[in-house]
Amino acid sequence: MAESRRVELAEALALGPGRRHACHALLYAPDPGLLFGRIPLRYAVLMQMRFDGRLGFPGGFVDAGDGSLEDGLNRELREELGEAAAAFRVGRGDHRSSRAGPRVVAHFYVRRLTLEQLEAVEAGAPRAREHGREVLGLVRVPLYTLRDGVGGLPAFLENSFIGTAREQLLEALQDLGLLASGSVPGLQSPASP
Amino acid sequence: MAESRRVELAEALALGPGRRHACHALLYAPDPGLLFGRIPLRYAVLMQMRFDGRLGFPGGFVDAGDGSLEDGLNRELREELGEAAAAFRVGRGDHRSSRAGPRVVAHFYVRRLTLEQLEAVEAGAPRAREHGREVLGLVRVPLYTLRDGVGGLPAFLENSFIGTAREQLLEALQDLGLLASGSVPGLQSPASP
Repeated sequence: MAESRRVELAEALALGPGRRHACHALLYAPDPGLLFGRIPLRYAVLMQMRFDGRLGFPGGFVDAGDGSLEDGLNRELREELGEAAAAFRVGRGDHRSSRAGPRVVAHFYVRRLTLEQLEAVEAGAPRAREHGREVLGLVRVPLYTLRDGVGGLPAFLENSFIGTAREQLLEALQDLGLLASGSVPGLQSPASP
Repeated sequence: MAESRRVELAEALALGPGRRHACHALLYAPDPGLLFGRIPLRYAVLMQMRFDGRLGFPGGFVDAGDGSLEDGLNRELREELGEAAAAFRVGRGDHRSSRAGPRVVAHFYVRRLTLEQLEAVEAGAPRAREHGREVLGLVRVPLYTLRDGVGGLPAFLENSFIGTAREQLLEALQDLGLLASGSVPGLQSPASP
């Protein structure tokens, strides 16, 4: 993805038939829970371990049979996450960014759920069609940093990520104000989360 | 864990009260499935994303109230994996290795399940007590290598692992003959799996 460049959605859609379109979504929900009874979890943010051993967001390629980018995305979410993903729809209004490469245009969406919706996705995911195949498991992203200054989000970011998923994650966490100010050393947090 | 050394179980148990004991388990099951209809999955091997953003095996510290190492291990498995872990017991015969550090002795177990038992663990894990707290999600380990020579197990091994979990994983995969011969470039496979 090093050769990709950021494009507006309208430009991406006008790029012509030579490119395939892929859509992925960050799903998150407010989580009032505490780790060890004292560390606020703040939000549950979902990523998945992919068949290739790397972390990424659920989603995939849009097919010719899909009526729109979002139709393709929601179809992929049901295949990867199971029927609980049919309880909500990721729409055009959830689009965050697009990047165009020589062969693939990658679209990124962010969708806020209730914690109950997100937990239903987790509970149903092991029964999804692609579980144990294209998807090896769902994981939540830790948004805190432990006292050692490494455990939590900094260590999580040292894992293997597909394409620009790591950058998409960081950008979304900062844009949405999901990180507590100063929670991650070296990361800029928005002034008023 | 750099200062730890491998010890026999009897020696580990005789080390005295100055050290805490931790037990972790690799759970696996034969899996006849195919990825993309052509790549044999061979086995489903479970690891988990921990609260600290690193991959590890389920388990934890043995408490004073636990009657044995294995009592402590099975209690931790139920807390982290949920009630489906009560359908089997990890016993002394499943012990594989122990490593003694200055403060902690780490014991490692390997337990073979049926695919149905393993799938029940995955299905129930989102309802476990520590889900979303100490455990951020279960993932299966890809045992194959994709055509690019990196995707699959090699990329998976580039993730962040706690302590010696990565070495424990590799040792177990090789000892048990879970890898197809030559499936991972640079990794020795046993002569007769």
